[in-house]
Amino acid sequence: MRKCKIGIVGFGTVGSGIYKILSSEVDSHPILKEIEIAKIAVKDLNKKRDIKLNTNLLTNDPFKLINDPSIDVIVEVMGGVDLAKDIILQSLKLGKSVVTANKAVIARYGEEIYKTASKEGVYILSEAAVCGGIPIIEPLKRSLKSNSIKKMVGIINGTTNFILSKMTNEKADYKETLKLAQSLGYAEFDPTADVEGHDAADKISILSELAFGGKITREEIHSEGISKINLKDIEYANKLGFEIKLLALSERGQINSNDSLALNIWVGPSLIPKSHPLATVKGVNNALLIEADPLGEIMLYGPGAGSGPTAASVVSDILNLHAASVKNNTIDPLLSFYFWRNCHIIESSQINKKNYLRIICLDSPGVIGKIGDIFGKNNVSIESIVQLDASEDKAEIVVITHEVNNGDFERSKDEINSLNEVKIIASQLSCI
Amino acid sequence: MRKCKIGIVGFGTVGSGIYKILSSEVDSHPILKEIEIAKIAVKDLNKKRDIKLNTNLLTNDPFKLINDPSIDVIVEVMGGVDLAKDIILQSLKLGKSVVTANKAVIARYGEEIYKTASKEGVYILSEAAVCGGIPIIEPLKRSLKSNSIKKMVGIINGTTNFILSKMTNEKADYKETLKLAQSLGYAEFDPTADVEGHDAADKISILSELAFGGKITREEIHSEGISKINLKDIEYANKLGFEIKLLALSERGQINSNDSLALNIWVGPSLIPKSHPLATVKGVNNALLIEADPLGEIMLYGPGAGSGPTAASVVSDILNLHAASVKNNTIDPLLSFYFWRNCHIIESSQINKKNYLRIICLDSPGVIGKIGDIFGKNNVSIESIVQLDASEDKAEIVVITHEVNNGDFERSKDEINSLNEVKIIASQLSCI
Repeated sequence: MRKCKIGIVGFGTVGSGIYKILSSEVDSHPILKEIEIAKIAVKDLNKKRDIKLNTNLLTNDPFKLINDPSIDVIVEVMGGVDLAKDIILQSLKLGKSVVTANKAVIARYGEEIYKTASKEGVYILSEAAVCGGIPIIEPLKRSLKSNSIKKMVGIINGTTNFILSKMTNEKADYKETLKLAQSLGYAEFDPTADVEGHDAADKISILSELAFGGKITREEIHSEGISKINLKDIEYANKLGFEIKLLALSERGQINSNDSLALNIWVGPSLIPKSHPLATVKGVNNALLIEADPLGEIMLYGPGAGSGPTAASVVSDILNLHAASVKNNTIDPLLSFYFWRNCHIIESSQINKKNYLRIICLDSPGVIGKIGDIFGKNNVSIESIVQLDASEDKAEIVVITHEVNNGDFERSKDEINSLNEVKIIASQLSCI
Repeated sequence: MRKCKIGIVGFGTVGSGIYKILSSEVDSHPILKEIEIAKIAVKDLNKKRDIKLNTNLLTNDPFKLINDPSIDVIVEVMGGVDLAKDIILQSLKLGKSVVTANKAVIARYGEEIYKTASKEGVYILSEAAVCGGIPIIEPLKRSLKSNSIKKMVGIINGTTNFILSKMTNEKADYKETLKLAQSLGYAEFDPTADVEGHDAADKISILSELAFGGKITREEIHSEGISKINLKDIEYANKLGFEIKLLALSERGQINSNDSLALNIWVGPSLIPKSHPLATVKGVNNALLIEADPLGEIMLYGPGAGSGPTAASVVSDILNLHAASVKNNTIDPLLSFYFWRNCHIIESSQINKKNYLRIICLDSPGVIGKIGDIFGKNNVSIESIVQLDASEDKAEIVVITHEVNNGDFERSKDEINSLNEVKIIASQLSCI
């Protein structure tokens, strides 16, 4: 099968993440071997890098990649706006499909870029531009296309979610937590784009165009950030059963007399009931809830940033392009399924897992000790062992183990069952 | 553009859901208009139906559809095993791609079906067979293919999750709740497949084949159901900070000397920490957590069954097939993006939303009444108004409104701000 040759522009965290995936010996799908890195454009040829690269791959002229007829796909992961936009548009105009992780460029110049790609009969894919590793753009383009999207609401900025999570859990104040986020690399030196909601507005703009099909004027999106949130609000919200999160929302309205669909789009700090699925999104994670007709409500959740997740999304886009190009003569290797390896199921006794056990026994002193001894002898380490509900001569003991070998656990269970003090093992459950 | 002609076999809840999507006048993507229902095979031609159908569409012989050369895609939504399997295999052998929602057939005869499709150069798509409306199979085939999947764990049976949720929330016992689930149509007359975990085992078998690439022997999957769970376990688990859910798990092990990948697969009732994302999955919803390298952990969440969600997944598969077939001469309309309508953003004053307001005011009697009056006069209905933290001459009042018009709300805010008793409106947040 013909290989797909790619040129990577930019070799920072995302670029090197892509290199790692494509050169990895990890047990992954064989189609990854069909992607070949032909050239990498970097700013400084002499920079020291952690990754050992064949220096023949490197150039400091990104336009060399664009003009190389042997390269099928340009992967723009350099960041920034103006040069990145030029590289994307030039590549499309020369008939090359482009994969990008650049949300700032797509949110600002989407219309020109989409139109150029359509005109040239090539693709612009940008899964990594919104919510890092979570598949969101592809579902909007494919799985959800049978639906009419009604509403999207989500946590789509990891930096602010990290800060709000910390403020909630540790009652730490905003400025302090922002400093911590900066020191951990979760917030930039100038954090404005994140904390004032501009980054989330870029992303909800891109998602809204994909979901509702029309051009969005990015500047019209009202966004408010988290810099004015104080601990009191978080405390009161918690008391009342809510979490405070920075939400982005986009919702379908009516079609007006000019045949234009009204959209309600905003970014702002919001209260969410604690039982709401978005309330459990902690730290730098992202999640998007999509309400659609007739589908109902789905949520997509995962890491919103980071080298590995972002690179994985970029490589998925590359695979999609490769599949689309080979399809002319054969079947789409992403849409079809074939067995490509052998698998077998592990015997139950070889599995490791966490366990919950409820034991009904006589309420006699020392029984917890005896049970503990049996587990210890069998290498079963215990997370907690609690006596509950002692009444008359009966007591109930609940044990939660760490992740342990199933064979060891079953052996312990048999021994516990044979203790004189034990009446019955009433329940056994798995834990995660 | 050439239309995609489909033949639907079976016209129960899923079949009629498909018909509704394709004949709907709802504002949805224009590509849906390219799908045409050519023929529908039903058991009983004379059955009364809620949907008005052109009777020329109907036949009671499914093989008429398969043998009709004008039909491009066969949609098998009749259910059952033996006849459904024959229809799927026959269609593939005649060079027709097939979309199915039939997990029992795919879990049992997947190998034969996948091989036949590969050999004939056509597709078998089955998004609706696992977790109804949640895009899971497509992400495994596409977005996640750049990763090495390490583990999948999830709640993939809606019936048992409904029962366990009810037992937890209402301290209702198992048998009672099962009866309720049956009366609501969430559980079948013979509930064995659901409550004993067999349905979840079918699904995790299909997902494991897609994620790990090898054939799974369905019968080797150990599954345990929820029929032995009693209220005591739920009570204790809750006390210790856990929820009890029926989980399906599939995890990568080592590759053995025969070059076969070991897999740890099981279905069983399990404890989940309340803070875990899977713990918030309530009622008949499903969710799957996928751990992958280098992606990290993502979760896909949504409705696991139902006419609308299942039909939406079937139609997505049809669109994928249509896109794959038109691609030979033109660009893939699912992979590309173009603006297909006008959109505009709603003015802020026209938006409806829920609000949180924190007001610092004098601790004087009647101030809550005055605030309430102002909201009432402006049509702002209030969910709760609470006085917190009164000290010396100062009190803080927190108001949470229902979903109200933003203009009405802002007007109220201005009036409240001008009350003599009000010192400052300290915070304003959105609520969902």
